[in-house]
Amino acid sequence: MNCSIARSLDQVGEWWSLLIIRECMLGTTRFDEFQERLGIARNILTSRLNRLTELGILEKSPLEGRRLGYRLTPKGEELFPVLMALLQWGDKWAPGPHGGSVRYVERDTGKTLEPVGPRAADGRLLGYRDVRMMPGPGATESTHARIAARNLAILGENDADH
Amino acid sequence: MNCSIARSLDQVGEWWSLLIIRECMLGTTRFDEFQERLGIARNILTSRLNRLTELGILEKSPLEGRRLGYRLTPKGEELFPVLMALLQWGDKWAPGPHGGSVRYVERDTGKTLEPVGPRAADGRLLGYRDVRMMPGPGATESTHARIAARNLAILGENDADH
Repeated sequence: MNCSIARSLDQVGEWWSLLIIRECMLGTTRFDEFQERLGIARNILTSRLNRLTELGILEKSPLEGRRLGYRLTPKGEELFPVLMALLQWGDKWAPGPHGGSVRYVERDTGKTLEPVGPRAADGRLLGYRDVRMMPGPGATESTHARIAARNLAILGENDADH
Repeated sequence: MNCSIARSLDQVGEWWSLLIIRECMLGTTRFDEFQERLGIARNILTSRLNRLTELGILEKSPLEGRRLGYRLTPKGEELFPVLMALLQWGDKWAPGPHGGSVRYVERDTGKTLEPVGPRAADGRLLGYRDVRMMPGPGATESTHARIAARNLAILGENDADH
């Protein structure tokens, strides 16, 4: 499928993978810690850690003593916006009985983070009806057709006008 | 798990679910269109559409003639930032052979969307090391302990100082 969303989901679009990456952002490094904190079967954890390492999202890293741990590569660290978007959506639409359990604030200022999402120049959050799709460098003929159909269906716009 | 990320993934943390939601944002409404565009088995598509409808992410909606289609509810529409974050990550870290196939621009101005993610007051993108976790209203005792451990591991900070 000629789509970056599909390619992303192919790499991280699976419950455990994103929770493992969340654990890394919480400071978890050792196999036993992942296992205990996630309550995941050891064989599944092994297979997910290996796959994330093969994909270059995690890398093995020496810890104290002779042990090896796992840490995020830059490719893995840049999944932070995906996790923040999921966190904020969950806080709103799938909260626990007493509301969100965690609040994120900017380290340097203590200011609560704003909702993550595409924004207009004036700072307003943009919804999917506020954006127009355009062909990118990797667009195939069928991508062009889908983009035109999308802009017509969602925006009521004929691409030939733009 | 007392975590909004885990609760979100429980609802949409599955390849097909997010691709179905992406299709909706591309203007797809009819069962046959989902089936054809995603190349998904009909029984799996039926089960995913039913689940997303039960969760209040999609709703059935009358189309022309007597047919029913599916459309996003507000809960579903607010997954747009998650999909944009995945799209941008995929464009960078899992691009197709010729680069991203789609570019998103602001409808009203034609301006290319900026990277999605938490930002500082000065507009700089914040990484996970730039944010401090604080207990939210739903924090349990174990959440408090994990937050303190996280801020120590990632930021080198003792929460008692803040």
